[in-house]
Amino acid sequence: MAMPRTATTFAPPVMEARRWLAEADLPADMPLINVSQAAPVDPPPQALRAEIARLALEEPQAHLYGPVLGLPDLRQEVANQWSAAYGGSIDAPQVAITSGCNEAFCATIATLLAEGDEVILPTPWYFNHKMALDMIGATSVALPTGPSLVPDAEDAAQLITERTRAIALVSPNNPAGVEYPPEVLSAFFELCQARGIALILDETYRDFHSSTQAPHDLFTRPGWEETLIQLYSFSKAYRLTGHRVGAMVAGRERLAEVEKYLDTVTICPAQLGQFAALWGMRNLQQWLAGERAEILARGEAIRSGFGPLADKGWTLLGAGAYFAYLRHPFDQPSDVIAQRLVSEAGILMLPGTMFTPEGDAAGQAQMRVAFANLDADGIAGFIDRLANWTA
Amino acid sequence: MAMPRTATTFAPPVMEARRWLAEADLPADMPLINVSQAAPVDPPPQALRAEIARLALEEPQAHLYGPVLGLPDLRQEVANQWSAAYGGSIDAPQVAITSGCNEAFCATIATLLAEGDEVILPTPWYFNHKMALDMIGATSVALPTGPSLVPDAEDAAQLITERTRAIALVSPNNPAGVEYPPEVLSAFFELCQARGIALILDETYRDFHSSTQAPHDLFTRPGWEETLIQLYSFSKAYRLTGHRVGAMVAGRERLAEVEKYLDTVTICPAQLGQFAALWGMRNLQQWLAGERAEILARGEAIRSGFGPLADKGWTLLGAGAYFAYLRHPFDQPSDVIAQRLVSEAGILMLPGTMFTPEGDAAGQAQMRVAFANLDADGIAGFIDRLANWTA
Repeated sequence: MAMPRTATTFAPPVMEARRWLAEADLPADMPLINVSQAAPVDPPPQALRAEIARLALEEPQAHLYGPVLGLPDLRQEVANQWSAAYGGSIDAPQVAITSGCNEAFCATIATLLAEGDEVILPTPWYFNHKMALDMIGATSVALPTGPSLVPDAEDAAQLITERTRAIALVSPNNPAGVEYPPEVLSAFFELCQARGIALILDETYRDFHSSTQAPHDLFTRPGWEETLIQLYSFSKAYRLTGHRVGAMVAGRERLAEVEKYLDTVTICPAQLGQFAALWGMRNLQQWLAGERAEILARGEAIRSGFGPLADKGWTLLGAGAYFAYLRHPFDQPSDVIAQRLVSEAGILMLPGTMFTPEGDAAGQAQMRVAFANLDADGIAGFIDRLANWTA
Repeated sequence: MAMPRTATTFAPPVMEARRWLAEADLPADMPLINVSQAAPVDPPPQALRAEIARLALEEPQAHLYGPVLGLPDLRQEVANQWSAAYGGSIDAPQVAITSGCNEAFCATIATLLAEGDEVILPTPWYFNHKMALDMIGATSVALPTGPSLVPDAEDAAQLITERTRAIALVSPNNPAGVEYPPEVLSAFFELCQARGIALILDETYRDFHSSTQAPHDLFTRPGWEETLIQLYSFSKAYRLTGHRVGAMVAGRERLAEVEKYLDTVTICPAQLGQFAALWGMRNLQQWLAGERAEILARGEAIRSGFGPLADKGWTLLGAGAYFAYLRHPFDQPSDVIAQRLVSEAGILMLPGTMFTPEGDAAGQAQMRVAFANLDADGIAGFIDRLANWTA
């Protein structure tokens, strides 16, 4: 008897980390520093909350079923802003709105894969991508990235088989905190195009990229619709995590297949959240620029303040968007260290073992720090506390 | 090359019906009567809208990630109200909140099925169940129900093979509008329990059941957790379709598997909608009783006003919850008739072919009427117009 879908994957790492927390005796003199999850802890700005309240009272459609592929005005706004930001010409029918960016990934792979097909994922990978592939009966093929944490398209080419249907990239990267340079994204696009497979590019953290230039020119490439599937989330930019609104930009034919998936699983994205995302896109660009500046400053605080950790043998491998990715200096595997840090140092961070294949040596030496919720003082305190701890 | 997941299923029927509408020339003198979709057309009552607005302003958690399995207070409220309504003792850890009831079904089958496994569905079936099973690589085994539209557990027993993992029932039924009697549900439960398979019982329309008694006693059975998975939707009761909030009641071990699915696909249900559902459960019972009375009166209007259609050879097979299910008297298949009705009579209803396997003779003779949005006058007008049309 074959294992049912969910039995082929693992328990959600974020849930497992919460259980560590629940079961640990935290040190009495150290308030918890939780750098485990990439999520805003504050609600949307007051103006957006007021708009959501107004919509709840005055916009009946905010409570009723909407189109499977999303609110037409929101699809159009994404098309407009993306065309301006990336160059090229993106039309509303090439945009779908989803119930969060994870669902966009799940819908994407459902249009690409049959049982036993393969997707190449750079490691460290985003664990929900791995879980989604496990559950659909697909094989995740690990593409190690080495110390740069940036994958190499030539390495990826060696992993392509007759069962390979896609390569999935995340940039700026979760968990590694690195931005993939335009030439890397270009090389992957050209590889995928040449081999007739899809390039899934998750740009959930695009609003916090260190460059204000387009991070790639892939939407200007002739025939991009045949190859590229871009994923996005409104959750981080507008602090709408609890409203579950994401997006996908892809070819019209693919979106007709995506529509089947979305209709079957969630029927439509939450309508009120879509109206909120639309209002945010139209009214919060200045506010978002400030958010971005603050996140970039926090990343800089990690880099410039890393000395005490470097002195203890830690290495900063990446720091960007919401994440820093570290190599620890200890002989124990990162999952053991992560659990010890909870009770011994009052720090909750996720081990590299959660982002790599079982037994992966790199993952056992690495840790992810989701620093976005720590201000500069908080970051200094975190570094100080971590540097004072030893395995 | 095997077909990808979405290619193994069909386009969403509701979308297809909308396309008929978009492409049709409606008769000039006949405003459209749309009885194609089971969805409220009005927003939630004013008091609930005001509460949603208050939450948007004052409850930060309404905008942020919540637990994967749902808001604890809402899970507890379901447990309390269900224990009172069904007898037995349902605890909060046996309740999960989902992004709509379709997702509850998708999560359920992901915990049960591997590639090629089978689920028995009475026909006519709910097409999103069929689509979900197609997309997960499972086989839907049709269980014809005959003129009563109520399935027989002894017939189902004949269809069980070594690959069968579940039987999925919907009561009150979509599309057939019939309520499965307690003894039928009991027989199915006992069959599933004896054969070691799951009974999935979708009670989306439970709030509009014609009886105020418990529709079954399955939650009082020892070991129900091993067999029963009940699904529910807050969409119809509180007019929250656009907020995407459903529920599942099942065993704790199964919900640990469900948690993997939900974390991977949507992370958590929309938080504001969950707060709204909770407020509705606590404050709108009187209002909901009025809604139920109105829906029951509309069903009665279908039954008592059916004469003109009976005179033309139509048969009323079922009328309950939001739906009536009809047999038409014509030689043409129901999908042809449904399309002709749009342009010739200004009526949009779904053909039985959308609820039955390809080529199924019963489905070709049947039509679904989602009458919940028609008041008594509207129902009389619908019957009159349909009776005056001929193929």
